Amino acid sequence: MTLPVDEIQARLRDGFDHSVERLSALLRIPSIGTDPAYQAATREAANWLVRELQEIGFEAGLRETPGQPAVVAHHPGPGGDGPRVLYYGHYDVQPAEPLELWTSPPFEPTLVEGASGTRLVARGAVDDKGQTMTFIEAFRAWKEVHGTLPVAVTVFLEGEEESGSPSLEGFLQAHRHELGADVCIVSDTNMWDSETPALGIMLRGLLYQEITLHGPSQDLHSGLYGGAVPNPLNMLTKILGDLHDRDGRVRIPGFYDELDDLGELEQAWRGLDFDEARFLGHAGLERSVGEAGRTTIERIWSRPTCDLNGVFGGYTGPGAKTVIPAKASAKLSCRLVPGQDVQKIRDGLRAFLEARNPEDCRLEIEDLGAAPALKVSTDSPYLKAAEAALFDVFGRKPILVGMGGSIPAVGAIREHLGIESIMMGFGLDDDRVHAPDEKFELRCFRNGMLSHAVLLGTLADR
Amino acid sequence: MTLPVDEIQARLRDGFDHSVERLSALLRIPSIGTDPAYQAATREAANWLVRELQEIGFEAGLRETPGQPAVVAHHPGPGGDGPRVLYYGHYDVQPAEPLELWTSPPFEPTLVEGASGTRLVARGAVDDKGQTMTFIEAFRAWKEVHGTLPVAVTVFLEGEEESGSPSLEGFLQAHRHELGADVCIVSDTNMWDSETPALGIMLRGLLYQEITLHGPSQDLHSGLYGGAVPNPLNMLTKILGDLHDRDGRVRIPGFYDELDDLGELEQAWRGLDFDEARFLGHAGLERSVGEAGRTTIERIWSRPTCDLNGVFGGYTGPGAKTVIPAKASAKLSCRLVPGQDVQKIRDGLRAFLEARNPEDCRLEIEDLGAAPALKVSTDSPYLKAAEAALFDVFGRKPILVGMGGSIPAVGAIREHLGIESIMMGFGLDDDRVHAPDEKFELRCFRNGMLSHAVLLGTLADR
Repeated sequence: MTLPVDEIQARLRDGFDHSVERLSALLRIPSIGTDPAYQAATREAANWLVRELQEIGFEAGLRETPGQPAVVAHHPGPGGDGPRVLYYGHYDVQPAEPLELWTSPPFEPTLVEGASGTRLVARGAVDDKGQTMTFIEAFRAWKEVHGTLPVAVTVFLEGEEESGSPSLEGFLQAHRHELGADVCIVSDTNMWDSETPALGIMLRGLLYQEITLHGPSQDLHSGLYGGAVPNPLNMLTKILGDLHDRDGRVRIPGFYDELDDLGELEQAWRGLDFDEARFLGHAGLERSVGEAGRTTIERIWSRPTCDLNGVFGGYTGPGAKTVIPAKASAKLSCRLVPGQDVQKIRDGLRAFLEARNPEDCRLEIEDLGAAPALKVSTDSPYLKAAEAALFDVFGRKPILVGMGGSIPAVGAIREHLGIESIMMGFGLDDDRVHAPDEKFELRCFRNGMLSHAVLLGTLADR
Repeated sequence: MTLPVDEIQARLRDGFDHSVERLSALLRIPSIGTDPAYQAATREAANWLVRELQEIGFEAGLRETPGQPAVVAHHPGPGGDGPRVLYYGHYDVQPAEPLELWTSPPFEPTLVEGASGTRLVARGAVDDKGQTMTFIEAFRAWKEVHGTLPVAVTVFLEGEEESGSPSLEGFLQAHRHELGADVCIVSDTNMWDSETPALGIMLRGLLYQEITLHGPSQDLHSGLYGGAVPNPLNMLTKILGDLHDRDGRVRIPGFYDELDDLGELEQAWRGLDFDEARFLGHAGLERSVGEAGRTTIERIWSRPTCDLNGVFGGYTGPGAKTVIPAKASAKLSCRLVPGQDVQKIRDGLRAFLEARNPEDCRLEIEDLGAAPALKVSTDSPYLKAAEAALFDVFGRKPILVGMGGSIPAVGAIREHLGIESIMMGFGLDDDRVHAPDEKFELRCFRNGMLSHAVLLGTLADR
């Protein structure tokens, strides 16, 4: 069943002030999920969304978890054999500290005129209340114009995203039937720039390990023993210092053996107008440093890495202590890319370490989590639908971007529900996410709503 | 002036029970200098020693320091142009914890029959009250038999040795004239074994530095930036992992360029009956690991080393955090041997680090202390006097040993007073120094007194 979209877009434009008011009402609720002092407010935000979705005709309610409740809502759509679409967002927000750096109070949404138009300033303005409201407002417009949604929709809004989603996996497992769908739409990512939309089509995976090298049975005095015993710190730095070759390539056996051919994608990325100076400048750096012969974009989007995230051992307080420690540890993580098998890389890392393990030392490896890389097929009909919707609204094709980090929900939804996600977001790099004066450009909010409205119609045609 | 020694030895043997009683009286005073709760007891021990030395004819008194008082005492000897001899010891003791592991209360000296004779068990039994009383009892015997000492003696007893001697350097500078002497005798070291005396003739020096490698201006998310920015932990482990070559030799430029030729000494050490299995077993190890082609004794006594004593950076708490830290640090120390110039090694280390410093990183080096190696010339007449005295008492030549660590007082006395030390001690490796049930074999106590008595006589002949 195909319903006309033009009228819906007009409705969204005409009613935009009301959309901003509704988003502002949600932003006034300080749903800092991680802070027990905001327990009631967090639940209030969830209930606000339940009521909002009920108003649009959803069967909506809270679902309890060991932590913050989830909002789950269902709309049957027009019936028929169209796809079922799952929408994911989160209603919890980061703490607002440091409060003194906010120009206006974080939970009093304020409209501010900026260089590129009006922006709404508040904690959660974009992450993720603003982005969540882009699709909820699109639902509302469909409902108001056509009395229903064009496809069957399930909404799943998490309340623990900013605290690491501790209940997410269990929740998905327990509710896998209720949350079943053909595709998931996630709005928690950024545009390429304020004029150019983007779709996330690749997320690097992660293998995180903690390595401990045990040497002497106890801490030793470096005067008495130094020179004649294996010092785990000397040994561990020698092993870890060998992780990269001169060309910045990772020496773990098999690390590059099974990478997907991303030549076409990487070729396309070379044409992007990527502001490298700005990207590096944020880190106080001038030069990109990494795997030889690769662009910065490849280095952060499509090439696997190995980074030490922590190293510790021996005496680390002020001043000097002449100790040879009994052990030394490192936290090490690999960012994985499509084609790499988590278990093979894990095995390769173990082989790398064991091959270098000094005779008198004992190696201990602890697994601290792993997730494969994710890639959305560029042939996916849902991706094509999103591309078409964005082209319709922005008048230009969206950039298909990679993302260096993982979005835990996207990986978990794939793993536990078997559903691929389309990452269509409307944030900007300068939105000050997690920082004081977080903002959402009203233009981005409006374009987001319009894009979701069009996408709903396009999905109905599939 | 030469006075007969035989009668003095006889006096010491006959009066041995009284010597043990006096040592026990000193051991009953819990002079835990580092613990404010034992402030009064610490001063009481110092005063006890002042009275003891006064009884023997010393002009003795306390000298205040910013911390615990020092005991300083002078005996003019017989007059004439014999050498002036400085004796160093310390009257403070380590805390006794864990108390529950003591068989008898730590400050109730208890005689226990052991496999190799009777031992006196108490905190400080050997370190350093027992060793200090070996020379004070020798003084007493000389005084009782001959009415005077055979040489001019100054005694300097420290009260802060177990808390790192914070006032020592300032005290030596302020009292350099009062403490002036031709040689210093230190009794705070061990014998080779219970039958075989030893003289320390070499102490390794130390260069201690803290190195910090600064990369990005702030901690970064490894998903967003990993692969394209210099990770200070990756870089620092690579640099530090390069400190040793395959043969365990240190790669700092010039590290081995100016070593004294110790061939003769090292040759002698090869003939020693060194219990390597026991030495390594204490550290839970089976094999000596270090510079290729060197014996374990060389590795710990006469070869320079480079050990990491601490490495820290990034996330070091439980679990995983995907951070690329802004900086990473290491505490690094080199044990130095005779011939090595502290400043040249410091410069060499800096050159080593700077040659490997990645372009985008900033290296920061902090000096946390340095001391050159010490060597007593085997031609020293004082060393020969000590060798002769020990041979006289034990019927065998003392082993001339190196020591891997430093004895701060020996270095400070050389630096600030310009006096070389003869390290003649009577402890055993199994004396449980700093541990519960610390003990001093009565046989060692007696042989120590006898040796000091003979040495005093020998020194008078110089």
